Amino acid sequence: MPIKSLIRTIPHYPHKGIMFRDITTLLKDPIGLRTTIQEITKRYQTYSIDKVVGIESRGFIIGAPVAYQLETGFVPIRKPNKLPAQTIGRDYQLEYGNDRIEIHADAVQPGDRVLLVDDLIATGGTAEAAVRLIREMGGEVVECCFVIDLPDVGGRTRLEKMNCKVFSLCKFEGD
Amino acid sequence: MPIKSLIRTIPHYPHKGIMFRDITTLLKDPIGLRTTIQEITKRYQTYSIDKVVGIESRGFIIGAPVAYQLETGFVPIRKPNKLPAQTIGRDYQLEYGNDRIEIHADAVQPGDRVLLVDDLIATGGTAEAAVRLIREMGGEVVECCFVIDLPDVGGRTRLEKMNCKVFSLCKFEGD
Repeated sequence: MPIKSLIRTIPHYPHKGIMFRDITTLLKDPIGLRTTIQEITKRYQTYSIDKVVGIESRGFIIGAPVAYQLETGFVPIRKPNKLPAQTIGRDYQLEYGNDRIEIHADAVQPGDRVLLVDDLIATGGTAEAAVRLIREMGGEVVECCFVIDLPDVGGRTRLEKMNCKVFSLCKFEGD
Repeated sequence: MPIKSLIRTIPHYPHKGIMFRDITTLLKDPIGLRTTIQEITKRYQTYSIDKVVGIESRGFIIGAPVAYQLETGFVPIRKPNKLPAQTIGRDYQLEYGNDRIEIHADAVQPGDRVLLVDDLIATGGTAEAAVRLIREMGGEVVECCFVIDLPDVGGRTRLEKMNCKVFSLCKFEGD
């Protein structure tokens, strides 16, 4: 499968025991980038998406071309204190400690049909917080779309328990 | 001009006296996003670009769809310790203190014709460091492309002194 074969694995990054799946080798390949965006947009062409929301910062690299190709707007979800206008935010737990994401308060309108995009789903903590933020604004998360799913870590199941649909282009199992 | 009119100005962000030009209002507008990417790609269609390099992280949102539309690869330049494989980096001066950017050592090949993309050029410190990194790898920076130029702050002139061409979709003067 061409997409998966263009993803580089870096052992023990950022910590010992982690197999890091590096999409930069997929992105720098013209056919890899093109196939990735086209496989995603083909799926959503008939979903009447209003906005693509991408999670900082690799989610921007996938989400922005998807928004362009679907002819929707693009909205960034960012780390704290990065967005200049009024934001709403959500804290969430990591394995060690906490993190927070924010979105502009005027970025999603009630009733907007939103496609949430990131490069990878692992435990799903960030994606869960993003789904909650979008729902809090009245948006409908039509689906969460990732290039890579690490099913052993449980993120997909976590999102599905929130009645959120999940799609990924490829999976790495046994991590 | 539609692109400029969709950019929101936020006074005194992130510091008193700064007029922050916020492209999120342009990006969330379907026609704004589409027009931005099409105006850039129209210019470069005949330039035989091999790679689009985008600077973290708003440069990802503009650069990735440009790469997709030009059918080239996309390469991210990131803040320190964000890229997982072997990198080369460059330190540069800010008004107060220093900063650093990094790129994967295998991301640009000698002879690659590179389009460098970011959302905005102000003093040009980051862009200058990015151009030097790409040239150090043997890449040719065909042009630096920005959505917004703040000509009063001198970044365009700084890049032109390095024999680097500069293009922007719009300008804000008198800042």
